[in-house]
Amino acid sequence: MTLNGLLQKSPASLPILQATFGLERESLRISKINHRVAQTKHPEILGSRSFHPYIQTDYSEPQIELITPIANSTSEVLRFLGAITDVIGRSINKDEYLWPLSMPPKLTADEIAIASLEDHWERQYRDHLAKVYGKVLQSMSGIHYNMELGANLVTALFEESDYTSLIAFKNDLYLKLAQNFLRFRWLLTYLYGASPIAEQGFLDKPLDKPVRSLRNSHLGYVNHDDIQVSYQSLERYISDIEHYVNSGQLIAEKEFYSAVRLRGSKHNRDYLKKGITYLEFRCFDINPFDNRGITQETLDTVHLFALALLWLDDSFAIDQDIADAKELNDRIALSHPLEKLPQEAPADLILSAMQAVVEHFDLPEHYHTLLENVKAQIEHPELTIGGRLVTEIDHLSLETFGQEKGQAYHDYAWHAHYALKGYENMELSTQLLLFDAIQKGVNVNILDENDQFLKLWHGDHVEYVKNANMTAKDNYITPLVMENKVVTKKLLAQAGFPVPAGQEFADKDTALRYFSQVKDKAIVVKPKSTNYGLGISIFKEPADLASYQSALDIAFAEDDTILVEEFISGTEYRFFVLDGKCEAVLLRIAANVVGDGTHTIAELVDLKNQNPLRGYNHRSPLEIIELGDIERLMLEQQGYTPDDILPEGVKVDLRRNSNISTGGDSIDVTEAMNKSYQQLAAQMASAIGAWVCGVDLIIPDENLNASKEEPNCSCIELNFNPAMYMHTYCHAGKGQALTPKILAKLFPEI
Amino acid sequence: MTLNGLLQKSPASLPILQATFGLERESLRISKINHRVAQTKHPEILGSRSFHPYIQTDYSEPQIELITPIANSTSEVLRFLGAITDVIGRSINKDEYLWPLSMPPKLTADEIAIASLEDHWERQYRDHLAKVYGKVLQSMSGIHYNMELGANLVTALFEESDYTSLIAFKNDLYLKLAQNFLRFRWLLTYLYGASPIAEQGFLDKPLDKPVRSLRNSHLGYVNHDDIQVSYQSLERYISDIEHYVNSGQLIAEKEFYSAVRLRGSKHNRDYLKKGITYLEFRCFDINPFDNRGITQETLDTVHLFALALLWLDDSFAIDQDIADAKELNDRIALSHPLEKLPQEAPADLILSAMQAVVEHFDLPEHYHTLLENVKAQIEHPELTIGGRLVTEIDHLSLETFGQEKGQAYHDYAWHAHYALKGYENMELSTQLLLFDAIQKGVNVNILDENDQFLKLWHGDHVEYVKNANMTAKDNYITPLVMENKVVTKKLLAQAGFPVPAGQEFADKDTALRYFSQVKDKAIVVKPKSTNYGLGISIFKEPADLASYQSALDIAFAEDDTILVEEFISGTEYRFFVLDGKCEAVLLRIAANVVGDGTHTIAELVDLKNQNPLRGYNHRSPLEIIELGDIERLMLEQQGYTPDDILPEGVKVDLRRNSNISTGGDSIDVTEAMNKSYQQLAAQMASAIGAWVCGVDLIIPDENLNASKEEPNCSCIELNFNPAMYMHTYCHAGKGQALTPKILAKLFPEI
Repeated sequence: MTLNGLLQKSPASLPILQATFGLERESLRISKINHRVAQTKHPEILGSRSFHPYIQTDYSEPQIELITPIANSTSEVLRFLGAITDVIGRSINKDEYLWPLSMPPKLTADEIAIASLEDHWERQYRDHLAKVYGKVLQSMSGIHYNMELGANLVTALFEESDYTSLIAFKNDLYLKLAQNFLRFRWLLTYLYGASPIAEQGFLDKPLDKPVRSLRNSHLGYVNHDDIQVSYQSLERYISDIEHYVNSGQLIAEKEFYSAVRLRGSKHNRDYLKKGITYLEFRCFDINPFDNRGITQETLDTVHLFALALLWLDDSFAIDQDIADAKELNDRIALSHPLEKLPQEAPADLILSAMQAVVEHFDLPEHYHTLLENVKAQIEHPELTIGGRLVTEIDHLSLETFGQEKGQAYHDYAWHAHYALKGYENMELSTQLLLFDAIQKGVNVNILDENDQFLKLWHGDHVEYVKNANMTAKDNYITPLVMENKVVTKKLLAQAGFPVPAGQEFADKDTALRYFSQVKDKAIVVKPKSTNYGLGISIFKEPADLASYQSALDIAFAEDDTILVEEFISGTEYRFFVLDGKCEAVLLRIAANVVGDGTHTIAELVDLKNQNPLRGYNHRSPLEIIELGDIERLMLEQQGYTPDDILPEGVKVDLRRNSNISTGGDSIDVTEAMNKSYQQLAAQMASAIGAWVCGVDLIIPDENLNASKEEPNCSCIELNFNPAMYMHTYCHAGKGQALTPKILAKLFPEI
Repeated sequence: MTLNGLLQKSPASLPILQATFGLERESLRISKINHRVAQTKHPEILGSRSFHPYIQTDYSEPQIELITPIANSTSEVLRFLGAITDVIGRSINKDEYLWPLSMPPKLTADEIAIASLEDHWERQYRDHLAKVYGKVLQSMSGIHYNMELGANLVTALFEESDYTSLIAFKNDLYLKLAQNFLRFRWLLTYLYGASPIAEQGFLDKPLDKPVRSLRNSHLGYVNHDDIQVSYQSLERYISDIEHYVNSGQLIAEKEFYSAVRLRGSKHNRDYLKKGITYLEFRCFDINPFDNRGITQETLDTVHLFALALLWLDDSFAIDQDIADAKELNDRIALSHPLEKLPQEAPADLILSAMQAVVEHFDLPEHYHTLLENVKAQIEHPELTIGGRLVTEIDHLSLETFGQEKGQAYHDYAWHAHYALKGYENMELSTQLLLFDAIQKGVNVNILDENDQFLKLWHGDHVEYVKNANMTAKDNYITPLVMENKVVTKKLLAQAGFPVPAGQEFADKDTALRYFSQVKDKAIVVKPKSTNYGLGISIFKEPADLASYQSALDIAFAEDDTILVEEFISGTEYRFFVLDGKCEAVLLRIAANVVGDGTHTIAELVDLKNQNPLRGYNHRSPLEIIELGDIERLMLEQQGYTPDDILPEGVKVDLRRNSNISTGGDSIDVTEAMNKSYQQLAAQMASAIGAWVCGVDLIIPDENLNASKEEPNCSCIELNFNPAMYMHTYCHAGKGQALTPKILAKLFPEI
């Protein structure tokens, strides 16, 4: 290899940080009842393990494996891991939780059911492992950290090198990285080791004191001593493993355990032709101080560590160096967590390489900080994860700590249970759809986060989704129809459905002259195409000319064109129609408080706002009620001030409009609503060809039946991208989950 | 009947003007070569007469009948008549024109080919008419004015009346209107009579002087004297006509000619059960002073006249009154056009009824003016159409005048031939599509004019179209993909198509830090989603930090998110792809002038702007070139001022961007463009599932072939609503008509 000095010679503008990342985390499901390994089946709601890209079972049935997709940054990969964690937390039985430690709680071999996988070979493989290593040992959990260097980075380095073949270059580059990883992995064991003890029954001979990482020691999950694979060259590495497989000492190539694994092909020999694609670092214990089992700091420190490994020169006697390092690592793994690194550990070598990378490539401040933190942890063992964890050990057991943390993380998953953690900046309905996709194992890729643009796929079947229900299932003209209130009304009327009579105006003069036509009528004046109830004036009693005129001004302030429509008195309901069927009905009522004879109106508002469903900016199912100018004016018109104590049972409206976005209450009335209206709403959506549609009907008397001939209601609006979350998490009523229906319609094969 | 006084008792707020209107106009095609009736077939391009809703042939093959749809106002119906006129003007042979007079030019019976209709009965009917009235008489043309009173108006009157059946009420109302129409039609003959002479060969005994309206006299197209139908009651009317049909004196009910016809059912007897729907006023001569044959003033005056007829009391001896009025009408029709109304004409009666309507219902000023104009015309016969026309008569012939006017109207149809007259406020591509639909006989209805929203239909097949090519043929997600440049690039790249490398930024700091990655490269900085070339900076040479920074500011001024992309040098072409096939390729070059050694730059701009294709605000195929700040700066940078005389052959760019909207030139290169790029563009559109798509490719060298493997080009944008007009009417190149292809794809059955 001639890779020495390659990084040192690179220009500072080399995109050194460019890389992609993937994480896998294992975790045991635990019963809350006895805090032992759950004896239940893998939850059915998590879809099929035969294809699920994100949620699998590892060795045993209760050992869930969380798998992220490849991400372009450590923050992105961690965010996705958090999302999977969130999904699993809300998908497993409510009386189970995920074990937050690498070491399992107390267990016996017969508690461990091997995972019920369909694949015959995978079953056989697990049976073999049980025989060779024992089922108990297989119950340890860890995190695997996959990393591929960026294509531009590799190409730039290749171009600086003497290599003529990019594949040969990549093989040497990744092999060097793997070699040096094994030379210096003891540092990671020191920093991140977090398997200090084994619960009773795990080891034949119990430990007499806590250690850094039982899992990373020879007591952990390692091949038997007779397996010795050389890293001197890729050829040697491949043929050594093949030898053990052929001799039956390993059942498959993947049974060769190492802290680092070459990745990209199923069979090692393929690397010679196709090249190594990425490396898998397999040594990470679960960090119990983070619900995801690993932190952003760890991910970035390891990234920097890996770059430092590339910066370092190759070893001239690599197998010997690796053997020495293995011995050093074992010593550190089995040392007390408050013990410092042994003197002979070449910490300065790797630290100065990390420093050199930070400086040479002028990395952001963040990386300086990471390096300082590593140094501080080397100086102060109590700062390491192992050091922090040791204070939680009680009679050589971590069970109480594990139970507490595990249940706290479970509670955390259920906190703001309408949101998907890490994705709270996206629209709520999109968060729900992402949740469902991750749960069911539909692949997701966020094409544009601000634009709520998702790619979903299963096998070759791809669907694009924007704002959670804008899809290829609708044709283009239908939402354009719904976007235009006038056109919508014309089409509904032409199809024989009831809409309020009305007139469109593009100038105020003509609209004013129309006054004589409506001066005796209840009317609504509204802008033609804006939303959220802005610019709408309602006259339930005939308006005088001055009020009419000012209503025109208000509407024209929002749009070039306005509508004057007859006002239909009755209750407005939102019917959510999907694919010809009404799936939910919602009553929205204006922001309000109800008196208790004790609190002032302002206090009642505060109390109401404490509902965890209320938040800001459409990122919660309900909005915080404001006491702004509009609300105060509304109070004043009813003869109240915010400081008045409201008598018990008296309801005061704070808004005229019933939008959820201005603090309104959502009430799910799907089950109670007369089915004939649900059918009529579905017919309206079908009449204009809509796959998804929010139909707003005004119903004067729900007890009357609706039909096309005798509608007994009027349609005031169709919505082409109807909000879904508001039907799901309601102020009152049980709520209807709609995003799973969208997903099921998009992917009926799942 | 008890309808007397009903209008007088109505409140002023009665929607008295509410009505719908329809027009039919006949006109002969004339050969420019000999100015005689064309001997050619009805133009094939006008689609099939077996269903065409707007363009038919009347009696003879060259006699085109223009039929408007029902419109809600007189202005709307006249506008549509103008559009049909425009379409026919540009659809008939270029060496033909439409005859602008009711009376045909010189002709003989054997010049008149009966219309080649598929319907056997219609042929027979015409043969019968030829026998009974003569082919020559059938060559007169006129305008029929259809009018239905508004539903709210009729209902309001019905509710004020003593009637219990709405159908009976409507029948009496329309019968009263028809009766009074016949009592006072002589006023219309006086005002609008415009058939003053017959050319040689038309009459057996030539007239010795011009008259008001030969066509409305007994010499015109009337039933034989033995046909006498009573209007006393609907029953009588029906049975009288049935009697003549049964006796064979009329071949069909429709052979009963009258200045007014009851309408709404095919058979008169059905009116008794279903009610009369509307009336057809059939007495209008073609007004040769308007290319459409009738004016807005006439339409509104007749409307007011009709309302006055409703205001007037019924006659007690209606058949006698009608007979007297017929005699009076004949006298006026055959009077000299400069002669006043005879003393015995009860002008005051109808005028005061019109006045009463105007006052009682407080009609807008416009109706006062109309009434004043009628009075003035009664006072001054020379102001009537007949009075004006008489000055054009030369040796008892109008041929020269007819030829001149007819050809002038034909030239007018070809003026601004890219637009549809009356619809110039709509987008040009929509105007083209409307033109095509009217031409081919696809029914059109403008659902929203500002929004370019059309309903098109043929039989039961309905298609909605917005902005000329947004239709149900595209699915909803595809345009949403194209609207988002980042998502478009990701999808194209994932599908293996060439796109410029680049990065998206939501904040300026991160974008600034990216500078080190691009400081040696040619780049484009642009807002993520705005259009028309706003906010784009191109650095063909690497930018310095200050320029990069200001480019970021410019882009961020247009959008929250910006893109920094590699700049691909080459020529940009727009490929218009429809349904998997590239139908047009356009080269757009920046606004420019080329010197002639004589004119200054400012003068050259003026000269270039004289091209009739140039106009303002996207309502012409090319935009007027402005000499604003941007253009002046651009000149300055090249060392010019607007007052410099540009040497011959020197081209000066006035803009950096090549948008047509900023004065750029469009060059149709469809035929010359290497087909491999056309195929690649079509593949790109198909890859993202687009039915209609504007693919913008940068091509460094057109001589190289493009393929997915070796694209030799890069796609910089996909457009979901690509402009079509710019491919059709070009600064250079023959142009590609695209809207007919859209229409043919939407209605393959036509």
